[in-house]
Amino acid sequence: MFSQTVEYALRAVVYLAEQVDARTTQQIAVVTKVPAAYLAKVLQNLSRFEVVRSQRGLHGGFSLGKSATELTIWEVVQAVEPIRRIRECPLELESHRTKLCALHRKLDDALAEIERTFRDCTIADILAVPFSDTPDCSFPFVEEPAREGRISLK
Amino acid sequence: MFSQTVEYALRAVVYLAEQVDARTTQQIAVVTKVPAAYLAKVLQNLSRFEVVRSQRGLHGGFSLGKSATELTIWEVVQAVEPIRRIRECPLELESHRTKLCALHRKLDDALAEIERTFRDCTIADILAVPFSDTPDCSFPFVEEPAREGRISLK
Repeated sequence: MFSQTVEYALRAVVYLAEQVDARTTQQIAVVTKVPAAYLAKVLQNLSRFEVVRSQRGLHGGFSLGKSATELTIWEVVQAVEPIRRIRECPLELESHRTKLCALHRKLDDALAEIERTFRDCTIADILAVPFSDTPDCSFPFVEEPAREGRISLK
Repeated sequence: MFSQTVEYALRAVVYLAEQVDARTTQQIAVVTKVPAAYLAKVLQNLSRFEVVRSQRGLHGGFSLGKSATELTIWEVVQAVEPIRRIRECPLELESHRTKLCALHRKLDDALAEIERTFRDCTIADILAVPFSDTPDCSFPFVEEPAREGRISLK
């Protein structure tokens, strides 16, 4: 349901959210276990929508385009593979137009629910989940003991 | 988010739900506005999962595999393009296994919500939405006045 692209974009963003300095595509690729070429394209899209910021130069690389407390899952998803709500009849029936039939209303209701869930969840919310709520889990990416009270991203 | 395949499968099933006799691929294709070759593959999958039943012979074609009051959106979707819940860590981290991190827990929560919505909605539920709730809409497929109290599928 959620594509590989969405999964990779979210991994990259969650990883970057805890980094102080910019990280190169190669660095991100290793830690998030994403093929570097694939990741480069994902980062390009994230950059276009200012979800991440790219800096050139010796200590260049990618960092978050805004604070993790402001950046939502929704923004990340919409940057790489937008969820499109059903606004008009997919059959293009003249009599339907923007009045959806019961089937498409139901499908759009499900999309609306996803939108609400993702808009309500910031990257900071994800990072703030206490370690005790995810037992045996040193999320994400590197298998090290989690720090007290939160998830290890190191 | 929901693919063309899912959309086409649901159109076919909703259409068949109000037909007394079996309908050929060609008949379904015309009414649901789906390319016949594409529809044939979709119907094949629906048939494999007994969502529809195919009958050979002079009056052969497709009909629903079970009553519209028993058939859910979920079953239709799972037959053609299954929504896969996140049961294990997508990064295959040894320490995660079936304990999901906060990110994957959030994504799976969204999938769970879709599953619930679709499991709770039968094809009969869709057909039962009163016409007055979908104004200007003679859903689906053919632009004719709706019958009193329900949606026209004719």
